[in-house]
Amino acid sequence: MPSDPSLPAVAAFAGLGGQRVWSLMVSLFGDLAQGEGDAIDGPVLSAIMGALDVRPEASRVALHRLRNDGWLQSHKVGRISQHSLTAQGRAESAAASPRIYAAPPDLSEPWQMVVTEENGRETDSALRGAGFIAALPRAYVGRADSAVPKGCLALPGTPPPDWLRRAVEPAELEADYAALLAALSTLDAELPDADRLSALDVAVLRCLIVHNWRRLVLKHPALPGGLIRPEWPGYRCHLLVDRLLRLYPRPALQDLATA
Amino acid sequence: MPSDPSLPAVAAFAGLGGQRVWSLMVSLFGDLAQGEGDAIDGPVLSAIMGALDVRPEASRVALHRLRNDGWLQSHKVGRISQHSLTAQGRAESAAASPRIYAAPPDLSEPWQMVVTEENGRETDSALRGAGFIAALPRAYVGRADSAVPKGCLALPGTPPPDWLRRAVEPAELEADYAALLAALSTLDAELPDADRLSALDVAVLRCLIVHNWRRLVLKHPALPGGLIRPEWPGYRCHLLVDRLLRLYPRPALQDLATA
Repeated sequence: MPSDPSLPAVAAFAGLGGQRVWSLMVSLFGDLAQGEGDAIDGPVLSAIMGALDVRPEASRVALHRLRNDGWLQSHKVGRISQHSLTAQGRAESAAASPRIYAAPPDLSEPWQMVVTEENGRETDSALRGAGFIAALPRAYVGRADSAVPKGCLALPGTPPPDWLRRAVEPAELEADYAALLAALSTLDAELPDADRLSALDVAVLRCLIVHNWRRLVLKHPALPGGLIRPEWPGYRCHLLVDRLLRLYPRPALQDLATA
Repeated sequence: MPSDPSLPAVAAFAGLGGQRVWSLMVSLFGDLAQGEGDAIDGPVLSAIMGALDVRPEASRVALHRLRNDGWLQSHKVGRISQHSLTAQGRAESAAASPRIYAAPPDLSEPWQMVVTEENGRETDSALRGAGFIAALPRAYVGRADSAVPKGCLALPGTPPPDWLRRAVEPAELEADYAALLAALSTLDAELPDADRLSALDVAVLRCLIVHNWRRLVLKHPALPGGLIRPEWPGYRCHLLVDRLLRLYPRPALQDLATA
């Protein structure tokens, strides 16, 4: 059972939306048990989901769904169930991890602008696929080291005006990032030292952080550091996510099982 | 009277259009008599206009018009008239001369792209006024040393793709430049050495070259050298204009008067 300190944290995140139980579980397994052979014991999973204010029936439904989707698998070991990612679930978690756990970008990171000959759908797909962001008609921005499709004009970036920095921010996520920033700031201000938290508390906290960050960061391409506004809530969230995940390192599965 | 060799040249240029007599005279005075105190004697002007296939009445009408417009002035000195640019005519000729007589650009000349925040008319005017060329929505190209309006993003140019070089060429003048190139090439191929031409022949030739070049080059901003397609007829015209004007240097007014 989690000790007191994690409860206000759960409350801070409760208003953020996107708390579908199966999706929370995807975040939890991705964070705690992404290694081959990793498994979470049934009682540990129940304790974590309970601390996240999820009712037991809702957890069971979500587990059932994730097994049907081929994301999770469960087997009995003696009297308890062990739950683990399938090969597919592990592969998809691994694909998303570099973005979720990336260190915050260096704000002096070089960027480039790529200009296309026409407004073609094919070039647009190629550029977006390579991580470029549409900045104005026929012009995209991206990291300086991203490969440029043939026939495009690539220009090295210079210190950008404020309007360009704002133009590349995902406007549709502005309110969501601001809300996440408020929740992360509350967490950061109120939490005690990691050594006063149990392994289970840390697992719960990390799940809340990773889950709410993942929902936003995976919805848009990574902004090149050199184009990021230092005050952009998405960037300030990134700094706090990085700081909190390092402050509360991932607990070992055996520490959770024996808690 | 001009000697034979200039006649085929006149014929080569006859089909180019834009041979309004007053405009030819503007070119002639701008080329021959732009200095303060410069004047062209009536008989010399008549001989040049005759060699250009202009009838005497048409010359008289054009002179009259240019005097009325405040561009030219005439006064009698003994039995002959002397014609000269007014202060205004000299100032306007001087304003156009840097562009008309510019050396061909260095094709490795650096360029820049300037990106604007919005499609505003004010920024558009400022950029066009500074010699920039609209290349795509909200993006302009110009010489690397052109001043950039505040708030715009300026990016240093890189070796440009062919489509960008073509995009900055004045498409509406393509046929005109091709026709001028043909006429200049004929002239270049058929003309004898400068020392076999009279001062009057040279004045006629230069007038044809300057006039037909001026009509086109002043209709569009100068392209930054680094964006010019070497085969662009506008650039090839520039090379030939430069070569021919250096091959046939401006005759002194006293040499014309005594011819």
